[in-house]
Amino acid sequence: MNATGLFENIVKKRSFLCVGLDTEIEKIPSFLLNEKDPVFEFNKRIIDATHKYAVAYKPNVAFYECYGSKGWNSFEATVNYIKTNHPEILVIADAKRGDIGNTSKMYAKAFLENMPFDAITVAPYMGEDSVTPFLSYDNKWVVILALTSNKGADDFQYHNEDGIKLFERVLSVSQKWGTINNIMYVVGATHAEMMKDVRKIVPDHFLLVPGVGAQGGSLEDVARYGMNSKCGLLVNSSRGIIFADSTQNFDKVAGQKAKEIHIEMEKYLMERNLI
Amino acid sequence: MNATGLFENIVKKRSFLCVGLDTEIEKIPSFLLNEKDPVFEFNKRIIDATHKYAVAYKPNVAFYECYGSKGWNSFEATVNYIKTNHPEILVIADAKRGDIGNTSKMYAKAFLENMPFDAITVAPYMGEDSVTPFLSYDNKWVVILALTSNKGADDFQYHNEDGIKLFERVLSVSQKWGTINNIMYVVGATHAEMMKDVRKIVPDHFLLVPGVGAQGGSLEDVARYGMNSKCGLLVNSSRGIIFADSTQNFDKVAGQKAKEIHIEMEKYLMERNLI
Repeated sequence: MNATGLFENIVKKRSFLCVGLDTEIEKIPSFLLNEKDPVFEFNKRIIDATHKYAVAYKPNVAFYECYGSKGWNSFEATVNYIKTNHPEILVIADAKRGDIGNTSKMYAKAFLENMPFDAITVAPYMGEDSVTPFLSYDNKWVVILALTSNKGADDFQYHNEDGIKLFERVLSVSQKWGTINNIMYVVGATHAEMMKDVRKIVPDHFLLVPGVGAQGGSLEDVARYGMNSKCGLLVNSSRGIIFADSTQNFDKVAGQKAKEIHIEMEKYLMERNLI
Repeated sequence: MNATGLFENIVKKRSFLCVGLDTEIEKIPSFLLNEKDPVFEFNKRIIDATHKYAVAYKPNVAFYECYGSKGWNSFEATVNYIKTNHPEILVIADAKRGDIGNTSKMYAKAFLENMPFDAITVAPYMGEDSVTPFLSYDNKWVVILALTSNKGADDFQYHNEDGIKLFERVLSVSQKWGTINNIMYVVGATHAEMMKDVRKIVPDHFLLVPGVGAQGGSLEDVARYGMNSKCGLLVNSSRGIIFADSTQNFDKVAGQKAKEIHIEMEKYLMERNLI
């Protein structure tokens, strides 16, 4: 899928919601624990309840990897379930990988070739040859960390050379490695006011925005400062949707929460005359 | 294991060699492909042949992850085999992980709790709260990327604020998050001359040094500029040892290559009167 295809889906679904599948087994409803694969069963029901309102899903690998090979089975089953039933939905592996060239090549193979992910998040610290192996797949995306949503973002991402902060350098240098059809950037909703600066450097790229909800970011501010003429935003919500309820109705409540966000997103898309 | 324990092993083995287990199935001898788990069988024989000369092993997760849950089984079997048979050897998961706090906590659980790794490599881009969850385990280590061995290290790691390069800021800021007993740094052998600058900031920390051999770094230069009074170095070699031969004798040849490096390391340790 390229940027045009992604925008078309956003228009069609009147939403730029990405649902984060950070599925902690300790937090899933207890009645699911008798299932053969409780994590996948939870994800399946969340997907069934939310797919109408979402243009992307983002399982975070950490929450699967911590259960070893069993966790990998749940992870693979999840991406396969989404791509089989909803091929138009973008599935992002939130993996934050990045290593020397021959190693990044193996990570790229894992996520973009052996599994049907459309995109993977990548850490930029090791530079160009750690990222480019992920860019060698047609219609797949690399989502590069620029300005993250956590407190520690302050430690290094604002390191400032002649007025250029590190995250700005990441944006300006790395955009040359690909195009607006295969590179996105992570910009946390907790820095919504910085999106004006981000948009000066990458006006046309899609931004993947975590940090709305549990982390305190505002969807309204993200839309105000980050939206461009092709929307250019995928806003992620995870805990606020998937763990909104822990009863037999958890999936219905998750669907309701996703719908509420969709309605707010629809409003911002209409205000910009994008739908 | 703390820094004193690690130094004692270095003295005992007269070596500061870390063997990188970057086991690509395409490169292992063909006669092993009939085994039930060829990757683990290869690693087992490499470990049996090299453990006398090594104080650490470093499997790189990418080379296992790319085979999904099957790869994870080989990965787990490898770390279990080392820690069962050679509990004194440090086993480092080369994973280059790092995410927001609640996610890093899951990665830490995966590698340092659910698997018996002694250490994990971590990318610093997201700052303190992305690293500290890995530091909450007694006698375990975090190995933070500072100056990596690849070409792309130039892209961001030299970003310079008032004369302080990003990798220097990573060293000076992050050393406050832990101690010399639970933090090491990755400093590539391809930047051996920079080790003088590194040692000004972290004189006492252990450095994990990749890039000797296939990547072109010199062991002599690393020892000259990087060694401290407690050695303070783990020098990694991967392809130069494990893929030195692809016949029935691959393990013997690997053992011979490891022995050659050990002999050179022994010389540098003797020159410094450390053994």
